[in-house]
Amino acid sequence: MNLRRAGEDRLLHEIIPSLPVGKMVIGAAGDDCAVVHFHGKKRLLLLKTDCVVERIHFETAAEPFWIGWKAMMRPLSDFAAMSGVPQFGLITLIVPKTKSIGWVKKTYRGINSAAKKFEVSIVGGETSNTKGPVAISISVAGFAEKDRWISRNGGRVGDDIFVTGRLGGSRRGKHLRFMPRIEESRWLTKNFRVHAMIDLSDGLGTDLPRLARASRLDFEIDESKLPLNRSAKIENAISDGEDYELLFAISPRDRNRLTKSWRTKFPKLALTRIGTLHQTSNIRDRALPLGYLHFK
Amino acid sequence: MNLRRAGEDRLLHEIIPSLPVGKMVIGAAGDDCAVVHFHGKKRLLLLKTDCVVERIHFETAAEPFWIGWKAMMRPLSDFAAMSGVPQFGLITLIVPKTKSIGWVKKTYRGINSAAKKFEVSIVGGETSNTKGPVAISISVAGFAEKDRWISRNGGRVGDDIFVTGRLGGSRRGKHLRFMPRIEESRWLTKNFRVHAMIDLSDGLGTDLPRLARASRLDFEIDESKLPLNRSAKIENAISDGEDYELLFAISPRDRNRLTKSWRTKFPKLALTRIGTLHQTSNIRDRALPLGYLHFK
Repeated sequence: MNLRRAGEDRLLHEIIPSLPVGKMVIGAAGDDCAVVHFHGKKRLLLLKTDCVVERIHFETAAEPFWIGWKAMMRPLSDFAAMSGVPQFGLITLIVPKTKSIGWVKKTYRGINSAAKKFEVSIVGGETSNTKGPVAISISVAGFAEKDRWISRNGGRVGDDIFVTGRLGGSRRGKHLRFMPRIEESRWLTKNFRVHAMIDLSDGLGTDLPRLARASRLDFEIDESKLPLNRSAKIENAISDGEDYELLFAISPRDRNRLTKSWRTKFPKLALTRIGTLHQTSNIRDRALPLGYLHFK
Repeated sequence: MNLRRAGEDRLLHEIIPSLPVGKMVIGAAGDDCAVVHFHGKKRLLLLKTDCVVERIHFETAAEPFWIGWKAMMRPLSDFAAMSGVPQFGLITLIVPKTKSIGWVKKTYRGINSAAKKFEVSIVGGETSNTKGPVAISISVAGFAEKDRWISRNGGRVGDDIFVTGRLGGSRRGKHLRFMPRIEESRWLTKNFRVHAMIDLSDGLGTDLPRLARASRLDFEIDESKLPLNRSAKIENAISDGEDYELLFAISPRDRNRLTKSWRTKFPKLALTRIGTLHQTSNIRDRALPLGYLHFK
């Protein structure tokens, strides 16, 4: 069987259990970032890698600045999902030798601008030739306080489900030019007890079931409440993917204080309660239509 | 100008100065691994990324187990070069959906075997589709003791230059099946004061000048002393690349003790003194013939 028929989730399902994992590892493959013990008392080391590939994650004609931006911001969005602070980036640029130096420099300008936005140091990298499409793989190391990192699996029965920003239609540009919700995520965990969080990279229809499954809960959403981007429909909000917004679960007791102080702190960014987590009945039957699948 | 004409070193020369680098960074792009302060008193965080690309670093028909092995061992060879201990790996697998699941699993078996050899935990990864060749990018995090990590730039006038193993002809198989010299490197820094070290990935003719330039010194080697692999010639030892052996500079005062105790500790692995570092006159004129260049 080839990857087209198997799909990524099945592939990961087969591979992840076989990976070697030592005692220092708290959260490994399967959550947004890897979380490991390190040599400090209050902090954990977070590690994340992500990639963009020409004709999969960006069109050949896309502006190189925004290709670089996206390549850097994708792993940073996973830091947002864990309420982590990114610090160090490693860049792997796989590019055919027919590309111009100007193109590579503009791509790096995008990478650097994105890194500076969140005070990430670029500490290394690797360049390779290829006979195929451009691929950029970026790994990021950083930290989260031991009492502050948020996994996908802490959701509780009755939790409100909130989403930041607006969903759907990212292919019209937002999939390249998005801003990871790191500031928002850090503010959230400083001021509230968030139970579970994920960033919406594959679409609500894929990522919400992931959060619910990780928390061993079911969910219910009110589709009419989904915050939509201009000219996006409910279906787009569920399936398009690449929204890079935060989806999180939090006690309904925090609802009023959260929505009020959010409006003051982030007046330009929507925060919408779209549903609730509840006791599981049969997750498979209740899953949303599938979101973006890498091997579809 | 495109990359073919510019060459990788020139490209890096243009890009590296523009990279954002914060105060916690000790050694960034340009050495074997990135070295950063972290939240412990005795240890530094080491970070390294490396990649293999189909038809550049391995043939399409190569055994997937050894492709995975090579992908994992390449960054680990850079840990050896710094006398670091690798701990955590992140895998990015960029693979067309026409590849079989069996191929992917065998590749992961190679990655996992290589990781287990050095007790590296695989803590995360990313899989992406591509319309081109397979590419595997692996990032590794680990540590080195503050008083034990070895840079390229500490070589001193009069230092002996040693190389481990045998050089040349790696394309006949060693480029896939090599063993990073981590054990040897850790033993060296436990027992000796190594001044500068690098791993031979691009070939002696490229990597020795890098070590010498970083140390602001010149070098002289005795070509007749180069330890050659079977059926390799001096030219191969200088230019083939992918030897993944250690090249290091150490005081001649340590020569006798080093060669003696090495023979006892590593009886099956050659250790050869191939030359000396000395005062710089004009490095450019004295550079060896160019080694393997990625964009040649």
